[in-house]
Amino acid sequence: MSDDHTAPADDPRERVRADYPVFRSIPLRWSDVDAFGHVNNAVHYSLMDTAICGWLEESLVTGIRTLDALSVVVETGCRYYRELHFPSPLELGIRVVRLGTSSVQYEVGFFVEEQPVIAVAKFVHVYIDPETRAPSRIPAEVRELLERKQHA
Amino acid sequence: MSDDHTAPADDPRERVRADYPVFRSIPLRWSDVDAFGHVNNAVHYSLMDTAICGWLEESLVTGIRTLDALSVVVETGCRYYRELHFPSPLELGIRVVRLGTSSVQYEVGFFVEEQPVIAVAKFVHVYIDPETRAPSRIPAEVRELLERKQHA
Amino acid sequence: MSDDHTAPADDPRERVRADYPVFRSIPLRWSDVDAFGHVNNAVHYSLMDTAICGWLEESLVTGIRTLDALSVVVETGCRYYRELHFPSPLELGIRVVRLGTSSVQYEVGFFVEEQPVIAVAKFVHVYIDPETRAPSRIPAEVRELLERKQHA
Amino acid sequence: MSDDHTAPADDPRERVRADYPVFRSIPLRWSDVDAFGHVNNAVHYSLMDTAICGWLEESLVTGIRTLDALSVVVETGCRYYRELHFPSPLELGIRVVRLGTSSVQYEVGFFVEEQPVIAVAKFVHVYIDPETRAPSRIPAEVRELLERKQHA
Repeated sequence: MSDDHTAPADDPRERVRADYPVFRSIPLRWSDVDAFGHVNNAVHYSLMDTAICGWLEESLVTGIRTLDALSVVVETGCRYYRELHFPSPLELGIRVVRLGTSSVQYEVGFFVEEQPVIAVAKFVHVYIDPETRAPSRIPAEVRELLERKQHA
Repeated sequence: MSDDHTAPADDPRERVRADYPVFRSIPLRWSDVDAFGHVNNAVHYSLMDTAICGWLEESLVTGIRTLDALSVVVETGCRYYRELHFPSPLELGIRVVRLGTSSVQYEVGFFVEEQPVIAVAKFVHVYIDPETRAPSRIPAEVRELLERKQHA
Repeated sequence: MSDDHTAPADDPRERVRADYPVFRSIPLRWSDVDAFGHVNNAVHYSLMDTAICGWLEESLVTGIRTLDALSVVVETGCRYYRELHFPSPLELGIRVVRLGTSSVQYEVGFFVEEQPVIAVAKFVHVYIDPETRAPSRIPAEVRELLERKQHA
Repeated sequence: MSDDHTAPADDPRERVRADYPVFRSIPLRWSDVDAFGHVNNAVHYSLMDTAICGWLEESLVTGIRTLDALSVVVETGCRYYRELHFPSPLELGIRVVRLGTSSVQYEVGFFVEEQPVIAVAKFVHVYIDPETRAPSRIPAEVRELLERKQHA
C-alpha cells in the first residue's frame, strides 16, 4: 500500500469499522482454505472484487454492464494482519481513497465480528472506452455514487 | 445421478424447495463467472461442499474437526438445468438420500428466488478412521443429526 | 457415473492410461489444496473443464469461439479413488463415451505417474444455437474430431 | 508496489525476462477467465503463490513441510499491464528483491511468449515459529537458496 492514502489512520493495521462507509457481508467457502488451515492469500482478492463489483452492481440504477465505459483493474494489493478461518462471519468495508478523472482507488478492510482488522487491501479501477480501449471519464452515475461515499 | 434416490419426484428437474429440509444461503462471487457470462460448472461443487460442511460445522456441538472419524468425498455429480448469474440470491437445499453404516449420500438443490430448480447435485461422504484410513462408523452425533433431517 | 458407458472395463477404478486416446498435462496449484491437505473435490471439475476445452481449442482449426454452435455443460460427475497432492505431475486422459446428434459425453481419467487411476469423471456437452438456445447439431468440425478419437 | 525495490529498471512495466533468474511455467485454466473474457485479477495471486511455493518445494532437499519454520504471507500486490487470455503459454519469472532476517520479498513477472511483461507482482513471506507464532530466522537451507538466486 503506498503512502498517499487519505487514510483515517497512518497505519492501516489500526483501521476500524468506522473508517468505512460501505459494508458487504461475504461468507467464506470451504475451498477458500488451503493446506495451512486458513484462507489462502489469493482468496482475499476474489472477495474484494466481489464486494466492489457487487456493491456497484446493486447501487447503479441499471447495473455495471449498461455503463458507457468499462472498468479494468490496474492495480491491487493486500496486507494480511491476521488469519481468516472457515466459517467466519466476514464483512468487507469499502471506502474511496482517491477519485481521479478516469480512475478510482478503493481501500477494503476485512473484519470478523469484534476482532481487530484482519487485512487491508487496495483496488484500482480505470474506466476505458470499450472500443478504443483508451481511458475515458468515469461515468457520471458512478462518479456521483463514489463522491457521495467519499465524503460520508 | 443414479436412479436409486429415494426422491420426492422421479425427475430431479421437478424438485421444489419443499423437497429439502435444510437450506443454506451462499452468495455468488464475481470470479465464479466464466467467459460465457454464467457461473462455471465447477463452482457448483465448491458451493455444495461449503453448504454441507458449513451446515455440519454449525450443527455439531463441537464442530467437524473434533469428530473421531474423518469424512472424505468419494463421489459427486451435478445436473445443470438453468444458468446461474452473478449476482443472485442463491440458496442450496440439502437432503439426506441414503444413510449407510459409514457413508451418507446427500442431494443438493440450487434455487434462486421463485425460479424452477437450477441444478440438482449429489455428494457422497465416507467416514474413515484418521489413522488406519479404513471406513469407520458414522460418528453418533452426525448420525443423529442426519436421521433427524432424513425424516424431516 | 451411469452404467451405459461403452467402457473398456466395467469398473471405472480399473481404468488404465491405454483406455484414453488423448492426454493433457495440467499442473496443480497450491490453492487447489484444502484444509485436509489434498486437492479439494471441486477442483477436479475445473481441471476436467480445462482439459476438454483446451484440447478442443487447440484441435479445431479456428478454435471454439468461432463455431456456429455454443457448447453448454449439462451434467458432470466424478468418483474419487485416491487423494491428489500438490505438487504432482497430473495428466488427464480424455475419451468420448457417447456421441449423439447434439450432445457428447466424455470420460476423463486422472493419472499421476505409475499410480492406479486417481479419479474417473464424466462430462456432458450439449451444443445449442447461440440465438434460440435450442439444441443444435454438433458442428461438423467438432464431430469429425470426436469420431476420430472415439474409435482410436 | 513500493519504491524500495532493488529493481533492474525503475518502472516495472519495463521488466524483461532477463530480470528474473527463475522461471516457472503455469498453464491457465478455463475457469480462470471471468465474464470480461480475460483472466480475473485474483487469479494472478494464485499463480504467483503456486510459482513460489512450487519452486521452493522442488528446490529444497526435503520440501517445505519439513522446515523448522513456517512461512506466512504478510503482503502481496500486483500491477496489471496487459490482459491475460486462455489458453496462453504463461511463464512466471521469480526474483528475490529483499532478504531480511525473517522475511523475504519476491517479485514475479508474468510473461507470454514475446509480449511485453503482462503483470508485475510482489509477494512477502515471513517465517515464524510454528508454536509461538513469533517471527523466526529464515531456515538456513532456504536462505542459501535465496542468496544464490538473489545474486544470479
